[in-house]
Amino acid sequence: MIVIERQLAEEKVFKDPVHKSIYVQDQLIWNLINTKEFQRLRRIRQLGTSYLTFHGAEHSRFSHSLGVYEITRRIISQFERNEYSDWPRQERLPALCAALLHDLGHGPFSHSIEDVFDTDHEDWTCRIITGDTEVNQVLREIDERFPERVAAIIRKKYDKPIVVNLVSSQMDADRMDYLLRDAYFTGVHYGTFDLERILRVLRPYQGRIVVKESGMHAVEDYLMSRYQMYWQVYFHPVTRSSEIILKQILRRAKELYLNGYRFEWLPKPLLRLFQNELTTDDYFLLDEALAQTVFMAWADERDEWLSDLSRRFLHRRLYKDIVVNNHSEELFEEAKLQLKHAGLQPDYHLEVDFPFDLPYDVYQPDAGTNRKGNEKPPILLLDAKGEISEISARSDIIRSLSGLHQGKHRWYYPDDLLRPVAHRLDKRIRTIFGY
Amino acid sequence: MIVIERQLAEEKVFKDPVHKSIYVQDQLIWNLINTKEFQRLRRIRQLGTSYLTFHGAEHSRFSHSLGVYEITRRIISQFERNEYSDWPRQERLPALCAALLHDLGHGPFSHSIEDVFDTDHEDWTCRIITGDTEVNQVLREIDERFPERVAAIIRKKYDKPIVVNLVSSQMDADRMDYLLRDAYFTGVHYGTFDLERILRVLRPYQGRIVVKESGMHAVEDYLMSRYQMYWQVYFHPVTRSSEIILKQILRRAKELYLNGYRFEWLPKPLLRLFQNELTTDDYFLLDEALAQTVFMAWADERDEWLSDLSRRFLHRRLYKDIVVNNHSEELFEEAKLQLKHAGLQPDYHLEVDFPFDLPYDVYQPDAGTNRKGNEKPPILLLDAKGEISEISARSDIIRSLSGLHQGKHRWYYPDDLLRPVAHRLDKRIRTIFGY
Amino acid sequence: MIVIERQLAEEKVFKDPVHKSIYVQDQLIWNLINTKEFQRLRRIRQLGTSYLTFHGAEHSRFSHSLGVYEITRRIISQFERNEYSDWPRQERLPALCAALLHDLGHGPFSHSIEDVFDTDHEDWTCRIITGDTEVNQVLREIDERFPERVAAIIRKKYDKPIVVNLVSSQMDADRMDYLLRDAYFTGVHYGTFDLERILRVLRPYQGRIVVKESGMHAVEDYLMSRYQMYWQVYFHPVTRSSEIILKQILRRAKELYLNGYRFEWLPKPLLRLFQNELTTDDYFLLDEALAQTVFMAWADERDEWLSDLSRRFLHRRLYKDIVVNNHSEELFEEAKLQLKHAGLQPDYHLEVDFPFDLPYDVYQPDAGTNRKGNEKPPILLLDAKGEISEISARSDIIRSLSGLHQGKHRWYYPDDLLRPVAHRLDKRIRTIFGY
Amino acid sequence: MIVIERQLAEEKVFKDPVHKSIYVQDQLIWNLINTKEFQRLRRIRQLGTSYLTFHGAEHSRFSHSLGVYEITRRIISQFERNEYSDWPRQERLPALCAALLHDLGHGPFSHSIEDVFDTDHEDWTCRIITGDTEVNQVLREIDERFPERVAAIIRKKYDKPIVVNLVSSQMDADRMDYLLRDAYFTGVHYGTFDLERILRVLRPYQGRIVVKESGMHAVEDYLMSRYQMYWQVYFHPVTRSSEIILKQILRRAKELYLNGYRFEWLPKPLLRLFQNELTTDDYFLLDEALAQTVFMAWADERDEWLSDLSRRFLHRRLYKDIVVNNHSEELFEEAKLQLKHAGLQPDYHLEVDFPFDLPYDVYQPDAGTNRKGNEKPPILLLDAKGEISEISARSDIIRSLSGLHQGKHRWYYPDDLLRPVAHRLDKRIRTIFGY
Repeated sequence: MIVIERQLAEEKVFKDPVHKSIYVQDQLIWNLINTKEFQRLRRIRQLGTSYLTFHGAEHSRFSHSLGVYEITRRIISQFERNEYSDWPRQERLPALCAALLHDLGHGPFSHSIEDVFDTDHEDWTCRIITGDTEVNQVLREIDERFPERVAAIIRKKYDKPIVVNLVSSQMDADRMDYLLRDAYFTGVHYGTFDLERILRVLRPYQGRIVVKESGMHAVEDYLMSRYQMYWQVYFHPVTRSSEIILKQILRRAKELYLNGYRFEWLPKPLLRLFQNELTTDDYFLLDEALAQTVFMAWADERDEWLSDLSRRFLHRRLYKDIVVNNHSEELFEEAKLQLKHAGLQPDYHLEVDFPFDLPYDVYQPDAGTNRKGNEKPPILLLDAKGEISEISARSDIIRSLSGLHQGKHRWYYPDDLLRPVAHRLDKRIRTIFGY
Repeated sequence: MIVIERQLAEEKVFKDPVHKSIYVQDQLIWNLINTKEFQRLRRIRQLGTSYLTFHGAEHSRFSHSLGVYEITRRIISQFERNEYSDWPRQERLPALCAALLHDLGHGPFSHSIEDVFDTDHEDWTCRIITGDTEVNQVLREIDERFPERVAAIIRKKYDKPIVVNLVSSQMDADRMDYLLRDAYFTGVHYGTFDLERILRVLRPYQGRIVVKESGMHAVEDYLMSRYQMYWQVYFHPVTRSSEIILKQILRRAKELYLNGYRFEWLPKPLLRLFQNELTTDDYFLLDEALAQTVFMAWADERDEWLSDLSRRFLHRRLYKDIVVNNHSEELFEEAKLQLKHAGLQPDYHLEVDFPFDLPYDVYQPDAGTNRKGNEKPPILLLDAKGEISEISARSDIIRSLSGLHQGKHRWYYPDDLLRPVAHRLDKRIRTIFGY
Repeated sequence: MIVIERQLAEEKVFKDPVHKSIYVQDQLIWNLINTKEFQRLRRIRQLGTSYLTFHGAEHSRFSHSLGVYEITRRIISQFERNEYSDWPRQERLPALCAALLHDLGHGPFSHSIEDVFDTDHEDWTCRIITGDTEVNQVLREIDERFPERVAAIIRKKYDKPIVVNLVSSQMDADRMDYLLRDAYFTGVHYGTFDLERILRVLRPYQGRIVVKESGMHAVEDYLMSRYQMYWQVYFHPVTRSSEIILKQILRRAKELYLNGYRFEWLPKPLLRLFQNELTTDDYFLLDEALAQTVFMAWADERDEWLSDLSRRFLHRRLYKDIVVNNHSEELFEEAKLQLKHAGLQPDYHLEVDFPFDLPYDVYQPDAGTNRKGNEKPPILLLDAKGEISEISARSDIIRSLSGLHQGKHRWYYPDDLLRPVAHRLDKRIRTIFGY
Repeated sequence: MIVIERQLAEEKVFKDPVHKSIYVQDQLIWNLINTKEFQRLRRIRQLGTSYLTFHGAEHSRFSHSLGVYEITRRIISQFERNEYSDWPRQERLPALCAALLHDLGHGPFSHSIEDVFDTDHEDWTCRIITGDTEVNQVLREIDERFPERVAAIIRKKYDKPIVVNLVSSQMDADRMDYLLRDAYFTGVHYGTFDLERILRVLRPYQGRIVVKESGMHAVEDYLMSRYQMYWQVYFHPVTRSSEIILKQILRRAKELYLNGYRFEWLPKPLLRLFQNELTTDDYFLLDEALAQTVFMAWADERDEWLSDLSRRFLHRRLYKDIVVNNHSEELFEEAKLQLKHAGLQPDYHLEVDFPFDLPYDVYQPDAGTNRKGNEKPPILLLDAKGEISEISARSDIIRSLSGLHQGKHRWYYPDDLLRPVAHRLDKRIRTIFGY
């Protein structure tokens, strides 16, 4: 198959606060950006509920997607400029498309929705790419089978692993963009690393992307940034608290629906989500504006819990958290029981969270496997003799980062409700809550 | 009246990408931030439709309001540290509240809504402060008349002009924060200036805020940043185009409503807006999430124009713009006429824009008067002898900046509709459009 | 003549705080950097005595020269990438050499030495390039006449004005690097502008470098930076004071030499300078380390004035400055007379300074002519129709910047000596000094 | 003893590129900065020969000393603002003086001179503080015994360990300033960390400076920066090479002197250094300008080796380095022997370097002891219960950083001399050199 790449008469430039400029040189990329499905990503925040902790974190998946595209473009452009023979030149356009579109299937507050309704954003990305959509139409102008190729890269089933590597590995364009971008918008300094330096030491080599040995310290710096971002931003207890409330809202609404409750207002996309019958057309409508508008309506629903939870989320009256060093199933059940006696609703008013249940990791020497069973290839160093080694075998720092387990069990609960009745808890439990 | 300032046991710190940290030391400020009316500002973008031009510009009025508060806090804290006798110490808390709350009355895409429905965000700010709201309740804990005092500062009717000066002048905390913040989030470098330096040269003096003479170059730099931000960001033709479409959507919907059209879905706050009967409760619901959700619904309305305009806005299929050097009323009417002959709808398909109709100015030596009749006091220099002069009398740069009129007339139109029928236009008009 | 450009097997990279990386791709450039004459620039500070005002300003002409080279390289590389036909490709190497070497002839504290001994650094640059030096030898490997070509560019007598333009105009690589670099090392924020943006709008056009019309605001920003740097850094009164003392040291030493005074230690290069018989070999030895070591020795010379001045310079006991609004020749002579009566040495203890005697300007619409009679071509805008206009005809800001005369007359004098005898001055003069 | 702190009428501000502003509020500090001994630090580079690797690293110990002062000032000011009872308020001025003056005794290229002549900059600092100097005179204005107190802090013999802690521990103001400063001037991104955050979590506690538990990740970030700066900057092989040549110059000159060689020019301070009879007056003259001027003279000395080494240093013709994985004493002696057979001078033409012989460490959990036997207290965490623990017991990252030994043996040699005779080496040794 021959991909005919049509260049734009004049390069388009997006001003970007993270990469300064994002350059679009291909008509195809330009057309993809202008589809309604891609524009929809402007209405989905990149970091879900994190804006409730870091008020600057209001950036969208649209910005991030352009960023991943730009990093991929720079890597490939470096490969081409240096004429590295291990880079298959005809893969430029498929790689750029996969980079640009890889997050297309994200919905509002994806992690929570996926958890409660068992959907998967990667599946949705592929459905949008291969379904009856504007994106699909644009991709098919290249070739009837082109959408399928792009989807294969995203599914990690592509026959050229080096292309999958670019878009999905433990130091891929996706991770590099989101660390820098999330650090920029949250204002958390720790997340920055020297992107330019990293791009300079990447090499295509025998079907994979590897790192020149001299770049080892730059990779250490990148992984240290990941480590810091996880603890400062992604696992921040306030963000976890807002995620918990969000999931409770969705769980409660689903429960009510299944029990035949009549909502004052339930827009079609949500109804379909409850019915597990979402089409790509419905999915297109399911953005963060809709979710927030629905929560706003639910704040006035008759169901007391749904309305309480919705108000908590919208007005940022979150659950408090407390570290429980000696957490156990028994202890937790005991606490729930006592909350019940005190008049609270244990199913909603006490949750435990342990960040290592999350699909995150700083670095895994073996191909990292996340919750969904997806593998993320490790980072490989290439030495002067052309030999390859997995990086944690060479760096003590990285070895220590990859084995870290500092997560703590935290309990989340409504302090405003529990405090007035805390005297009803027995001493052991009361002490845990610090009343 | 004595204001009893209750300090927080422990200072609260917000991480902010622009000011690094925002410090809250007063229980009152903390309580105001936690009201539902203030949290609502998270759902209103600071720069309206600019995110369609600069994808990073997704920051909210919540962030900006905290920033204005923080700059005001730093100025006052400097005044107190140096024990300047011209600063009335008891005005600290009223000033901080006014700084924090001054944008509370903004709705979604304020400029467009105010234009079409003749509302005013400053009025709404005062209504929320003095009405039956959580904000009002928190303010009243200080004193029954405290809400009125804060509102008076915002209305510029306060009896201590120096406090009004801080929050509303041609170099106030509001302008300083939005220049830095908009520059940061758009990624446009030009908007930065040396805030720390400016804060160091401000002085309270005989009832006004003035600038020490040695700070003149710092002020020049600040005004040059304003100048650049206006031309690079605020007057950007693509942003203007999206504003035009937004206004057309609102105009069309209002028109339909007045003509008795039945909308598939028209949520209450919008109905009330059409009826010109908005209450503060309705207003609370009128956020950007609701606006976007309504536009999404309207994209499928039966009315062809409303649906076309809504799609243009949501999917970013904006009108094209062209500079018309010899614009005149006659020429414009002629062009409309010809568009009509060619089958387009001249009321919607041709608009003229001239940025100097806008309520913006880089700097006005006399108290700047904007569209609404509000005055903004000029910047005053204080020399070593204690004499005051208006800054443009001392700086050639500022004099030249304040007189600049570089605006151009631009026509906006749907290129996708006009191009196919352009042969029907006569030559003169066709040449203007460049067909 | 054919220049054979030999590429390095592997690109060399210098880490640079201003440009991040400086790339050397040509063997010739690499060899030039490694000559002893170019390495000598490490021992000459870029900003002369400014480190006595801004302690960070300790950077050398070596760093700046690499920076000028890098900016030139980026401009040419953009021209080549876009295949602009107006750029003569064979001029790449001559241009890069001229950019790299243009400051080669600078001595320690050049401005002062040139003033007192009437030397000229540009002449010395050309003497080193064409004389019996390592630099000359390296250049001759290209071609016997290559050194002469490079010198011609620096002398602005080259037959391709576009090459001279790159290295010497009112927005050349030299000025762009020093503004950014001096801002970075002094810590003065005002000097920064958006280099990347400016580089993107430069175009070769009919034998000159011009700026695309859309880049006008970026040029305004660059000139505003120049303006600010002049007033904040280059004309800083403390720096002017140290320059004055430095010149007095040199003047006094020359005077002593001409009067047959025997110095304890007078190294050969200085002797030759006094005799006006410097060779390039002597000149090579005349660096800032030598100058400082000589001043250190002179601090203990028998001649009281020479030792006093040297100590003032080394231990930073500078003259104080005072603005004299009504300065005139008569007033100044009168003041000198009174200083004499009071027991001071008027030739050394009172100096007047007016920055506009300096060979600086922010911008001159006509080809700027400096003290030495060198012309600097103005900045030209290229519009969409291919027409050229001088930029100040298009920008009010630039027009106002180019006509500014804000300089003030300042008198410099040793406060420590004058204060104790100030009562001997008559009232009028005493008032001026503020005693 | 009561220290009377005289405040300046108006705070003095130094513009600093690293800390933005450095504030001087005390007359004493201002007077110390203006002594000739402190001004001398302008003539000593902070990073010795590193400017030969990173051309931006031309900053002086003067800048660094001001920076250490400023960080100490900010820490103490935070302690005072929060009225922490464990901070002894009367120690403010002694601490600030020690911070400002701690590097006063550094000579040019200290590490090399100390190595060859067995001097110690800390001893010199104390000699200057307590001897007949301007610094001593200024300090004595506070109290006759004040100089001795300041010296005691620097010698770590002060009776208030908390003050010693501020100026000398494993996270002291010295280390914090030089990491940030060296990163800024070299342009190496890795050395930055969040100073503001660290300052916010420091606490005086029971006679020591400790870190609030919540600051652990900030400390990790700081130590990671140290780690990166060591490998990227301080141990850079090119810098090591220039240090080696510098030491050889000094060693050769000393050797010649001891053998009665007559130098063309040997200034008194050097003579005294050779005689081991330096006075503080001599020491004052021994700055980097003098050192460079002497090397320049030695480049033309009759002794072939001294002149060759001096030229190598001045013209940056350094020794090449090669990693020798299987380095041993025997192998090294064998290599020297063969170099001798090949006609080279093994004492000068082959050196081995292993960075861990250096007085550096990233972090040592037990009080770090450096070469000179000085102890550096570890970093302590303070938890909510008021308990203290050494930080590496709490952080896996830090534990792994503190145990790292990644140093490599490198051989340094003149490639220009060895390459032409490499065929005379036997195969084993030739292979090591890669000929």
